[in-house]
Order: sequence, then C-alpha cells, then structure tokens
Amino acid sequence: MRVLILGGAGMVGRKLAERMARDGRLGDALIDGLTLYDIIPATVPDGAPFPIKIETGDLPEPGEADRLLIDRPDVIFHLAAIVSGQAEQEFELGYRINMDGTRVVLDAIRKADYCPRLIFTSSLAVFGAPLPEPIGDDYSVAPLTSYGAQKAIGELLVSDFTRKGFVDGIAVRLPTICVRPGKPNAAASGFFSGIIREPLAEREAVLPVSEDVKHWHASPRAAVGFLMHAATLDSALIGPRRAFTLPGVAVTVGEQIEALRAIAGDKVASRIRREPDPFIQGIVDGWPRAFDTRRALDLGFEAEASFEDIIRVHIEDELGGAIPD
Amino acid sequence: MRVLILGGAGMVGRKLAERMARDGRLGDALIDGLTLYDIIPATVPDGAPFPIKIETGDLPEPGEADRLLIDRPDVIFHLAAIVSGQAEQEFELGYRINMDGTRVVLDAIRKADYCPRLIFTSSLAVFGAPLPEPIGDDYSVAPLTSYGAQKAIGELLVSDFTRKGFVDGIAVRLPTICVRPGKPNAAASGFFSGIIREPLAEREAVLPVSEDVKHWHASPRAAVGFLMHAATLDSALIGPRRAFTLPGVAVTVGEQIEALRAIAGDKVASRIRREPDPFIQGIVDGWPRAFDTRRALDLGFEAEASFEDIIRVHIEDELGGAIPD
Repeated sequence: MRVLILGGAGMVGRKLAERMARDGRLGDALIDGLTLYDIIPATVPDGAPFPIKIETGDLPEPGEADRLLIDRPDVIFHLAAIVSGQAEQEFELGYRINMDGTRVVLDAIRKADYCPRLIFTSSLAVFGAPLPEPIGDDYSVAPLTSYGAQKAIGELLVSDFTRKGFVDGIAVRLPTICVRPGKPNAAASGFFSGIIREPLAEREAVLPVSEDVKHWHASPRAAVGFLMHAATLDSALIGPRRAFTLPGVAVTVGEQIEALRAIAGDKVASRIRREPDPFIQGIVDGWPRAFDTRRALDLGFEAEASFEDIIRVHIEDELGGAIPD
Repeated sequence: MRVLILGGAGMVGRKLAERMARDGRLGDALIDGLTLYDIIPATVPDGAPFPIKIETGDLPEPGEADRLLIDRPDVIFHLAAIVSGQAEQEFELGYRINMDGTRVVLDAIRKADYCPRLIFTSSLAVFGAPLPEPIGDDYSVAPLTSYGAQKAIGELLVSDFTRKGFVDGIAVRLPTICVRPGKPNAAASGFFSGIIREPLAEREAVLPVSEDVKHWHASPRAAVGFLMHAATLDSALIGPRRAFTLPGVAVTVGEQIEALRAIAGDKVASRIRREPDPFIQGIVDGWPRAFDTRRALDLGFEAEASFEDIIRVHIEDELGGAIPD
C-alpha cells in the first residue's frame, strides 16, 4: 500500500507519518511507500520499514496534484490548509489553498481514473453561531469564517466526487487538538492548549476567557488514530453523507484546569494567570461547545474518555512520561 | 437603479424582466436600466420605461463578469445555471457554470470594490435523503446530485463574501416552480407541472409516480415576487446565514389532481394517465416533501396559500384567464 500525505510538514501530518513509520502498516496492509508533500520539506520520521519520499510544491499549481498521483497512492491524506486566522486575513490565499487546492486534488484523482481512499480533514469551523448544545449530525453547516466556508466546500466536493465514483472520500471534522505541542501561537484557540502545556513546562500561561467556556477536544494521538481509522474503514458503511464530526471530550476551561490540578497538583495549576480579553472571549463565544457524534461513534471512531486522559497523552507523548511539579 | 439579470433568457429571468418592465421600479426605486445576460440572447420585454441591453457570453470566461459590472449595477440577479439533469450528465460543465460561474461573479464584484445586492437562486436540491418532514431552517445541507452540491457551494460563497463586506448577497432556495409554462421536458420533476398544464391545454399528461408523492411548489409569479422581495429587503434583518428556503405549498400529487378537478372539472382531470415509472418514482422518493420556512416568512416572503391558487395563477398568466373544459 502506497500512502500520500498532503500537508506532511504540519503537526498532525508529522505525527501521522511517525505513527506509520512505527507501525509499518495501515490496518491490515503493509505500507510499501510514503510520500510527504508540503510547501516546505517535511521531516523524515525515524525507523520506517518502507521508503519515504519528501516532495515540496504549491498544491494548486497546474500539474502539481497530477504529479503526486503518478505512482497511484492507495490512501491520500489531504491535510494541507491555510489556517483559520491566516485565511481570514489573506482572503485570496485562503480560497486558493483551501478551496482550489482541494478541488485540484479531487480533479486530478478523477482524471487519474482510479478510486483511492481520500481522507480530508475538515473542521468544527464549518459550524457558526447560533448553535445548539450538543450539535447533532444533522445540524446545518453555516460557517462564520472564510476558513470554515472553505472547509465546508471541501466537504461538499468530497461527497459529490465520491457519489460519482471518482474517489472513495471521507471528510472528518477534527475536534480542537489539545494539547498542541510546541510554542504558543497567535490563534484565538491557543489558550486551550497553552493553559495545560505551559504550566507543565514550568512556564506561566495566560487565560483570556472565562472558565465557563466549553469546547470540544481530542489529543494529537487521537487525531492520528482518527485518520488511521478513516483510512481503513469499510466505506460502504458510511452512506452518501461523507462528512461528519469526530468524537471528542466536551469540557469547560474550569474543568480543564481542575483536570490539570488533579494530575499535576496545585503548584502547576497556579501558573495560569487570568487576563480577560473581550476580543478573544467574543470570538470563542461563537464556537461550538459540544457535539453528539453518533455517526462517527457508530463507525468506530474513538476519542479520549476524559480531559485527564488528554493531559496524560501529552505527558506520555511530549514529556517522556514525567509529570513535572 | 440599474439591474443586471444573469440568466436572463431562462423562464424565471424572462418573467422577472417582464415584471420589471411593467412596474418600472424595484421596491421604491425607479429602474434606470436593465441588462439581460445569457448564453443566448434574451427577449426584450415589451413596454419597459427604461433602456434594456441584451448581452451574451460564457459567464466563467476571464473578464466576462468584470465586463458586466462596468456600469455598476445596484442589483444583480444571478439565475444562470446548468440544470440538474445536465449537471449530472456533464460533470465538468456543471461545475464550470454552476460553481465557477458563481465564484467569478462574486470575485468580480469584490474586485469592482462596491457592494451591490446579489440575489442567487439556490435550490431544494441542496437537501438529500434521509430528510425529516417538514425540513426546518437548521437542517443539514447534504445534496445527492452535483447540481445540489454546486448550489450549496454557491450558498457558502454568497454568505462568506457577504460576511466580508464584498457584496450584499442573499441565496434563496426556490420551491419547485409549478405550473411551468411551455412544452413538457425531460426533467424528472416535469410531471408536477405536466399533470396541470397539459390537461388544461386539452392534452393528455402522464403521471409516472404514485399519488402520495408530496412536494413543495410555488408559481412562476410567486418566484418573481420572491426575487423582487429579495432585491429590496432590508438585508440587515437577515443575519449572517444568507441562504434559506422560500415558502411554498406542500401538496401530494393526489391533492394536485383534486385541486385541478375542483377548478376545471372532471373532464379536464380525467386527462391524466397513470403510468408508473419505477425509475422516476425512485428519484422523487429522495426529494423533500415539505418545509418549515420560518426565516423566510419572518422576512416577508410570500407564496400562494393553496395549490388551487397556483393553478389560478397559471390560468391567469398563461391562459388569458379562461378555464378550458
């Protein structure tokens, strides 16, 4: 089985490649080759029992997607995207990468005239306020950002190209990934990870919103598990609606902090400084709080059972298993 | 006020132009000029108190939309589309006209750097089975045709470009237009109009589905009224979700036939021949049956109150007011 990751240099792409290098397989199938494609060179994961190719380029450019399909990958993970904040500020770039980029991949597959599995990562940003709690599988997609609109368009394209038999596509809406490793970033959602990651690294974190903000989370490890499961799922079970929301853990910020305190103690939890920011509070107030993800659960997708589990995954995968104090 | 109709040669475009020619105004504003654009030359309506330009071209071609915006129309009706059956058979053409065509219009407006009212006609085809009855304003858009996917993408683009302030857009999902004037066509939905129009014209009509099929209808006159209302609506009332379903009359085929009998008598109603077609029955079984269109009703959109009213509109507008026997 040959695998292609579009967006292989991002956090999720990197962790997915590392997991495949470790497992050597995807479900029952041995992996014979992996291509990691991105605008910058992806890192080759250690110890893979199969050859890895690193490719770079600008996905919407003519011929680019076709070139990547020459060896007819059996499974294509399409993770390449301009992130939410940048897509909002750079309108044309967001449409070019997130909408046109997805379409050229689908068109290239259609013209290559075979039917690989395609896993497209969509987002909770396809939903916009006002929102029920929980949001069910049949709730209206009505984004309030260009990123959300572009992802919703990608979902429609994946479903339609699949219905026509051009690809075997699945569009999965990932929960907010928490705890994101690495440095704090400028994303409005950054604090969800920051208030866990920074205190555990003996640094102060700023909490810009009230503790009753509730949101939908899964760990980076769960995200990789979702993508591996989507790649190997019997897609005949899915039906024509190829886009759905993935399971996660719904917790308030207050519950996140209590989970941190339970695992790492008062001293660590005290490194969170409340500094309310009405601008960020306003953005986050429009975000989904919780989902009923019956379809994904019925299809066997599994997230963590609690936010404490999410913190433990971070400690195991990023901190070598040691809980600092 | 200057008005541009994209798709001015179609049935709805023609009736809309005739209505504007008759009224001379759109809401409170006098019309100074009307451009009718289509792939073939539209017909100039009689008696307009303003100049009318007929333009032809292929909308997605580079520069085409920009050219149409040179005189900065205040109101743009975007009705141009490849119809459902053709979009399903000619995949590339459907995406080119219905998706790319809509996007080039929006991009041209954005680049023209003013903010006209845009009315985009969407479709009930954005909904796909399984469907509740009635379908509410918050129900998931999940099309089962390429046409439906393309219209759903148009809705997302209209909402996003509007949110960004590039256009003042509204995407309205028209009910199935009944009674369509003209000749029977090959559309799967053709019988909804055929079983009324043909018997009233002393011709036999074929009914290919069972009488318990229920669907959502409005007259051509109501469709024109919807578009005129959308053009003059205070769009600040709409909120960020710029796409919604319009009101209509939910009736079964049996109720359609009873309405025809009540208005035109047994002899006319007896010209309907039952000839079940499992293929058409199968298609129609996946279609929406009824809607709860609270948002559109709150915004003042008005459809007929009964299917008898829909038949009366046909008799008035197409048959000179005379009920044949």
